Amino acid sequence: MTKQTLTQLEQHELFLTRHIGPDEQQQQDMLNFVGAESLEDLTAQTVPGAIRLKEELAVGNACGEAEGTAYIRGLADKNKVFKSYIGMGYYGTEVPNVIKRNVFENPGWYTAYTPYQPEIAQGRLEAILNFQQMSMDLTGLDLASASLLDEATAAAEAMALAKRVSKAKKANIFFVADDVFPQTLDVVKTRAECFGFEVVVGPASEAANYELFGALFQYTNRHGQITDYTELFAALKEKKAIVTVATDIMSLVLLKSPGEMGADVVFGSAQRFGVPMGYGGPHAAFFVARDAHKRSMPGRIIGVSKDTRGNSALRMAMQTREQHIRREKANSNICTAQILLANMASFYAVFHGAVGLKTIASRINRLTDILATGLKAKGVELVNNTWFDTISFKGLDVEAVKARAVAAELNLRYDEDGIVGVSLDETTLRSDISELFDVILGEGHSLDVEAIDADVLAGKVESIPADLIRKDAILTHPTFNRYQSETEMMRYIKRLENKDLALNHSMISLGSCTMKLNAAVEMNPVSWPEFANMHPFCPLDQAEGYTQLINELSDYLVNITGYDAVCIQPNSGAQGEYAGLLAIQKYHESRGEAHRDICLIPQSAHGTNPASAQLAGMKVVVTACDKQGNVDLEDLKAKAAELADNLSCIMITYPSTHGVYEESIREVCDIVHQHGGQVYLDGANMNAQVGLTSPGFIGADVSHLNLHKTFAIPHGGGGPGMGPIGIKKHLAPFVAGHTVIKPGRESDNNGAVSAAPYGSASILPISWMYIKLLGNQGLKKSTQMALLNANYVTKKLSAHYPVLFTGRNDRVAHECIIDLRPIKESSGVTEMDIAKRLNDYGFHAPTMSFPVAGTLMVEPTESESKVELDRFIEAMIAIRGEIAKVEAGEWPADNNPLCNAPHTMADIMDSEFDSRPYSREEAVFPCDAVKANKFWPTVNRIDDVYGDRNLMCSCVPLSDYE
Amino acid sequence: MTKQTLTQLEQHELFLTRHIGPDEQQQQDMLNFVGAESLEDLTAQTVPGAIRLKEELAVGNACGEAEGTAYIRGLADKNKVFKSYIGMGYYGTEVPNVIKRNVFENPGWYTAYTPYQPEIAQGRLEAILNFQQMSMDLTGLDLASASLLDEATAAAEAMALAKRVSKAKKANIFFVADDVFPQTLDVVKTRAECFGFEVVVGPASEAANYELFGALFQYTNRHGQITDYTELFAALKEKKAIVTVATDIMSLVLLKSPGEMGADVVFGSAQRFGVPMGYGGPHAAFFVARDAHKRSMPGRIIGVSKDTRGNSALRMAMQTREQHIRREKANSNICTAQILLANMASFYAVFHGAVGLKTIASRINRLTDILATGLKAKGVELVNNTWFDTISFKGLDVEAVKARAVAAELNLRYDEDGIVGVSLDETTLRSDISELFDVILGEGHSLDVEAIDADVLAGKVESIPADLIRKDAILTHPTFNRYQSETEMMRYIKRLENKDLALNHSMISLGSCTMKLNAAVEMNPVSWPEFANMHPFCPLDQAEGYTQLINELSDYLVNITGYDAVCIQPNSGAQGEYAGLLAIQKYHESRGEAHRDICLIPQSAHGTNPASAQLAGMKVVVTACDKQGNVDLEDLKAKAAELADNLSCIMITYPSTHGVYEESIREVCDIVHQHGGQVYLDGANMNAQVGLTSPGFIGADVSHLNLHKTFAIPHGGGGPGMGPIGIKKHLAPFVAGHTVIKPGRESDNNGAVSAAPYGSASILPISWMYIKLLGNQGLKKSTQMALLNANYVTKKLSAHYPVLFTGRNDRVAHECIIDLRPIKESSGVTEMDIAKRLNDYGFHAPTMSFPVAGTLMVEPTESESKVELDRFIEAMIAIRGEIAKVEAGEWPADNNPLCNAPHTMADIMDSEFDSRPYSREEAVFPCDAVKANKFWPTVNRIDDVYGDRNLMCSCVPLSDYE
Repeated sequence: MTKQTLTQLEQHELFLTRHIGPDEQQQQDMLNFVGAESLEDLTAQTVPGAIRLKEELAVGNACGEAEGTAYIRGLADKNKVFKSYIGMGYYGTEVPNVIKRNVFENPGWYTAYTPYQPEIAQGRLEAILNFQQMSMDLTGLDLASASLLDEATAAAEAMALAKRVSKAKKANIFFVADDVFPQTLDVVKTRAECFGFEVVVGPASEAANYELFGALFQYTNRHGQITDYTELFAALKEKKAIVTVATDIMSLVLLKSPGEMGADVVFGSAQRFGVPMGYGGPHAAFFVARDAHKRSMPGRIIGVSKDTRGNSALRMAMQTREQHIRREKANSNICTAQILLANMASFYAVFHGAVGLKTIASRINRLTDILATGLKAKGVELVNNTWFDTISFKGLDVEAVKARAVAAELNLRYDEDGIVGVSLDETTLRSDISELFDVILGEGHSLDVEAIDADVLAGKVESIPADLIRKDAILTHPTFNRYQSETEMMRYIKRLENKDLALNHSMISLGSCTMKLNAAVEMNPVSWPEFANMHPFCPLDQAEGYTQLINELSDYLVNITGYDAVCIQPNSGAQGEYAGLLAIQKYHESRGEAHRDICLIPQSAHGTNPASAQLAGMKVVVTACDKQGNVDLEDLKAKAAELADNLSCIMITYPSTHGVYEESIREVCDIVHQHGGQVYLDGANMNAQVGLTSPGFIGADVSHLNLHKTFAIPHGGGGPGMGPIGIKKHLAPFVAGHTVIKPGRESDNNGAVSAAPYGSASILPISWMYIKLLGNQGLKKSTQMALLNANYVTKKLSAHYPVLFTGRNDRVAHECIIDLRPIKESSGVTEMDIAKRLNDYGFHAPTMSFPVAGTLMVEPTESESKVELDRFIEAMIAIRGEIAKVEAGEWPADNNPLCNAPHTMADIMDSEFDSRPYSREEAVFPCDAVKANKFWPTVNRIDDVYGDRNLMCSCVPLSDYE
Repeated sequence: MTKQTLTQLEQHELFLTRHIGPDEQQQQDMLNFVGAESLEDLTAQTVPGAIRLKEELAVGNACGEAEGTAYIRGLADKNKVFKSYIGMGYYGTEVPNVIKRNVFENPGWYTAYTPYQPEIAQGRLEAILNFQQMSMDLTGLDLASASLLDEATAAAEAMALAKRVSKAKKANIFFVADDVFPQTLDVVKTRAECFGFEVVVGPASEAANYELFGALFQYTNRHGQITDYTELFAALKEKKAIVTVATDIMSLVLLKSPGEMGADVVFGSAQRFGVPMGYGGPHAAFFVARDAHKRSMPGRIIGVSKDTRGNSALRMAMQTREQHIRREKANSNICTAQILLANMASFYAVFHGAVGLKTIASRINRLTDILATGLKAKGVELVNNTWFDTISFKGLDVEAVKARAVAAELNLRYDEDGIVGVSLDETTLRSDISELFDVILGEGHSLDVEAIDADVLAGKVESIPADLIRKDAILTHPTFNRYQSETEMMRYIKRLENKDLALNHSMISLGSCTMKLNAAVEMNPVSWPEFANMHPFCPLDQAEGYTQLINELSDYLVNITGYDAVCIQPNSGAQGEYAGLLAIQKYHESRGEAHRDICLIPQSAHGTNPASAQLAGMKVVVTACDKQGNVDLEDLKAKAAELADNLSCIMITYPSTHGVYEESIREVCDIVHQHGGQVYLDGANMNAQVGLTSPGFIGADVSHLNLHKTFAIPHGGGGPGMGPIGIKKHLAPFVAGHTVIKPGRESDNNGAVSAAPYGSASILPISWMYIKLLGNQGLKKSTQMALLNANYVTKKLSAHYPVLFTGRNDRVAHECIIDLRPIKESSGVTEMDIAKRLNDYGFHAPTMSFPVAGTLMVEPTESESKVELDRFIEAMIAIRGEIAKVEAGEWPADNNPLCNAPHTMADIMDSEFDSRPYSREEAVFPCDAVKANKFWPTVNRIDDVYGDRNLMCSCVPLSDYE
């Protein structure tokens, strides 16, 4: 036998074969079928030569799982996990192990997609509904969203909502109390500038002195003080101002709710309910408003509806609020939520229940009482005289305290004005209080925790004013009161998981969403304490591991995108768009061209693009597409020329949302540049570029990257996401900065778009691992396999369904659009029927009616095996056969397996089923593969009483605003 | 409001409320129902006062999950994880992350029970079948078992099998080649002594010089040599000797199989197929024999059968081989297998496939070639001239090498005769070879790995003799060739998981098996590298964390059992029994009473007891029970007196297998002691003793503890287990020792019962955590809650089914036996029908027909909530109603939901279902709770063509051997 070389035996590229679906023989069979000799040949047929990269990527060679793990283990070890008393919105928490293991580390939860198909997503919809219930209970308001990106973003959204709903129509002032967290103020200011609002910062008590549309307060404030705002809020409401309140979820367990105090909007981070700090995220922010404002809420809301059997069923309610559907009429550009983290927080509340939460919160408060009492007794001057978990001091020898703190491996809060703060949390022990006495007072202070506690217990301390102690019951719903044993909790989690179809069951071929493998090896480091338990504002010299990881990942992304720099702050694709557009605007401003505010957007664009443009204060002008779905160059030229004086930029997606590599992309960039505009290239389809071309090489100036699409971060059932932006050199000075953490970049003092300097830093290891393990060749081959899988599916399906758009040589890029309009015409069977019927076949539906109504967009990704693709193709062909029976009149148009889909166990049990013109077997076991691996939708088709017809990414025709 | 004290707020006892099911209100309701004022009152009513402990346990107070985790994290940090080149049956391995996350860390896999209910266990049955297939393929033999405990135990079983099947009936010699691993020889010798076999140890080539019934060889041998034994084996077969071969699973990928060479039995450890070393275990041993010996195989075998629809279905085949059923006629006392680990190993083979395994094995061999070639070139003298992964040297300056090895943080093998050995494995890198050159030769040797590799590649090294290179194909079954992408692998694992009912779905109320919560916090440390990646024979100064953990756990168990010492070596309950009986025999011997060989066993005993007694070389004498199931004291007295001269011991279970606290237990102990016997108290029911009474306090001399029952180690779908023994002082010198690791105990030089000194050490953290988190009060309360749950279920069910045995005040202990014989009489409905019907209701059946045929034994454990108990009770009552319909003739005896149970999706789809006298809904949704959480059996009732009627623990009447 021929011996393999040692290098061959070492299988450095093994991970690639794990990541992609088809093996070599299958790849060859598929190439033969599509008519290409090799992957290179297919690439040459598909990708315009002019934009093909001449050189291979330079991110390094592939490495094995063990080697990659050892390397990142080394990075983790460079992080110093000090005890954190910094607070400022990030707190230590005990992630209940039953939740960590069964949710956070379980692909059944983290690989699921956004619940656009509610019939196969009732599990996480219930968990999110729990999150909303918990949010409402604690804030004392009526209507909660399914989570926002972080507390600071929520503040900006609250401001925008205030403007929308305030009756003080002429007012342009948004008042922010000067005792909110600095990062909150920072993000609000950035956003206000785009909107042209005037932000006035001052003492809370002065709020009513202004003519304002809204105001923001923090309860408890940044120093820990608890203030009764009842009268102030009443005064502001007199002035028709909207009162928004940032708050701490744990404190609300004990405190009178802001809702009861009169607030209109209450929000905050749910992080400390069992989600690790993670050096900044991801976490879920809760956002709750008065019911009157429901039409103006940002983000998603889960609601209860009914299915066709009349049973209760959950769904995303009021879907038109989905911002990408409302385009520039959107309330916000938010698309991604933080579902996985919202679920973890809600499970935390479910597991502890009201009594458990009260005990936890009371212990935190008690320890704070002891700490404060002891320090006061020693003459330390407190800034605040009321508190929940945070006390602040003045007059200390800050440097001495800091030195003792570092020696004790703990971090306090050091404000710029010499104030020192301590925030306690669930992880604080009584021994920690002794240590804090030592650190703050120096040794030899003779304070005794137990002795002080006796005083506290005797009622000599009243940290929470009597009339601000919470009186109403919280979390009274049975769900929060029946799963306090771990066995019951584990089973509840499992029961919900089993209702949902995730990637561990079958392909989720969502066009534009890239549901690829989220490999276990990529996920592992996220659980490590050295990544999970870091405070985002800890000193940089404690975060060397993170810094190196972020720098390496940035270098990788710079190389992959062909840009000059990367900004790792935005927490979602939409936030990346916003951050990128801001950079463009700042750039124009820096050149004295602040007036440039026109954003060209082709008709085919994702709805988030115009929403983001609007958010960044731009005016959207739509440019035409030709019949092939390509940008109409003549129209573009004309509009660019006509609007040249005020042209800011174009937003374009590549490959296009139609799933083809437009030949004219370079020309598009040139036209815009010639007229003084910048090119924003939406990175949603980056999975079709990596290693083959790049936005920088194509000529774009800025792009966001959906790390949760192209770079293997799982979708988490609807978030988290990560949307860093890549930029050319000239834009680099204008990306987001941060008010607390300043690593020494030119952009340090710019306004922030997220609460944390590196967004959701703790999931960056996933993308880092993905790139590290695949390496130069593997990344490219993954892209090529995405093309092969897509073209294989396209060619197979094209014999049965018309394919809407193709590019050169009749090739599609990484996805294809199946046109169902002729079928609807001939049979009455709708794209919705087909989508739901796919559930019966065990599949999640592809993207529906985006970018063209009446279509399905299929993106198989490189990770799906030929066996799985063939199963899907077989299902689609079988469904075409079913449609033919409807067309032929064999099955009535109003009673067939399509319009009745999906089918549930309840259908099959029903003795009336026999009256249907098809059998039970035809209903739920339509092909053999399903028998071996049946997935049961748990509810029948949901009645979209609120009037939404389309489930995902569907747009009102762009012509509406032309 | 009344303030809670800080201590109350700290919730040190929180874990107890997580561990037990009912909350305080529910506890009170249940107490009211059963007629007890408090748990103490119930205990007093139930447990004989004479044996109640006077003092509380002294294992420490309870602590929280975080505190316990921090403590054991500290222990983990005390282990030094050196690179291991020790070999000797334990090798570094890369656990594929997809398997680690989705199997090893997934309660869906690890909380399942032994697959006695095959209709709801087809997933792991398939995975085990894969294990058997893999074992057969690699060894070249026909019939594989579903795993044994470890390689050394497998060797002892092979010897026993050889004796059973050899035609050389007069021969009493078992020959063991002198180049097998020392721990293998050790365990074989221990066992041979019990059986009275003569073990002859000598050079392999001399085997045929003896009159022997069997022989054991190791291929490759302990020094790494690969020898062609074809002629030797032929010569031995001429002599009618049975040839058994210990082998290395990874080497077999490249080597001619022992089966092809003529071996009759081949076995070894499957550890290096993706199961961490874990300081000794748990791992699965494979065991494969010629088909001719199938009636003599030890342990379990999975086989393919048919269900009532004629579909293929898997089951445990030839169940009469279940040793506990055959009692003292058993082939072995093995009961627990290593299913979780066997599954991991089989998934490892499935994921890598034949090609992947060949590449891995070739790389190990190539690196060994390079190492050997380089060392030889420098004049190092090799002991072996052929090798797969192990080379041994003589003439080195051992102390100098050892010093350099320690400095480099790596371990080599140091034999007693000055030979130094190195075994490479999957984790070895080419850089490790350079390091090994440095360590073995000292620096400055100028060896270059790449240069040597060129020579090797050029064919200048022939480590595997040409005619011993494997020529036949392995792992050709499709299962090993279709799951090489991670996505496919993840889905395959999930698909199998979904077929199985585990504790994350519903209660598994197995009498005598104690399926309690396996809390996530208890499981976490098992995954940590500091516990997972330790070699069992590493120097003790590197294993200080393990040593401390084992010492602390031993102290806990000493306190809980009331014994004086604990031996943590046996890998299962059965092995514990064997080890305990050995200690008793050695004790008698030490007093000149080696003739004492009678073991009294009450009629009601678990079948493993007589099997173990037989294994330990004792004669079983059965003593009678009265109608209440209690030991018949008169009969015991008579037999003890009659057999006093030769009385060795009694084996008794407490509380009895009938689920009651026998009042006479102290008297039983006294009677046996008075006649010179020892008392072996089977610890299977220890869950009803902890904190209330103890075997030591009762008066027993030795017990095994099923850590996988009472102390929260999960059942793993059929293993691992851990069966340490507790002993009184006088027996302590006689417990198992170990030939390699000698920590300095009196027993160090005794024979071993397991390959590793501390058995399956890596799962001990689970029991440690369990005890640490519950503490003195929590352990006791858990026992009391087990009593309450059992008595609640008993009283609820007693209105509908007769309860067979109760003790004082009509109380049961922690389990109860429901008598179904009257029902069978009146309706024809069998216990099997009821067991299978429970599957339709979403429950695993309780223990069937043990200890009394025609009964169900229900043990709810303390972890089940009242809600779950009520669900189960509701199901049992509903089933009684169904039985009534059969009794009443409403449903025919041969066509009703009971005899047709369990029902599958195929049943419901079947249009012929309509001919049944009951509806689809009655079949599969018999009550509302099922609708909300349906579990589908994946096959219909399995046809037990091999003639086994009973699924679990059922016994042939003990009267058969009186």
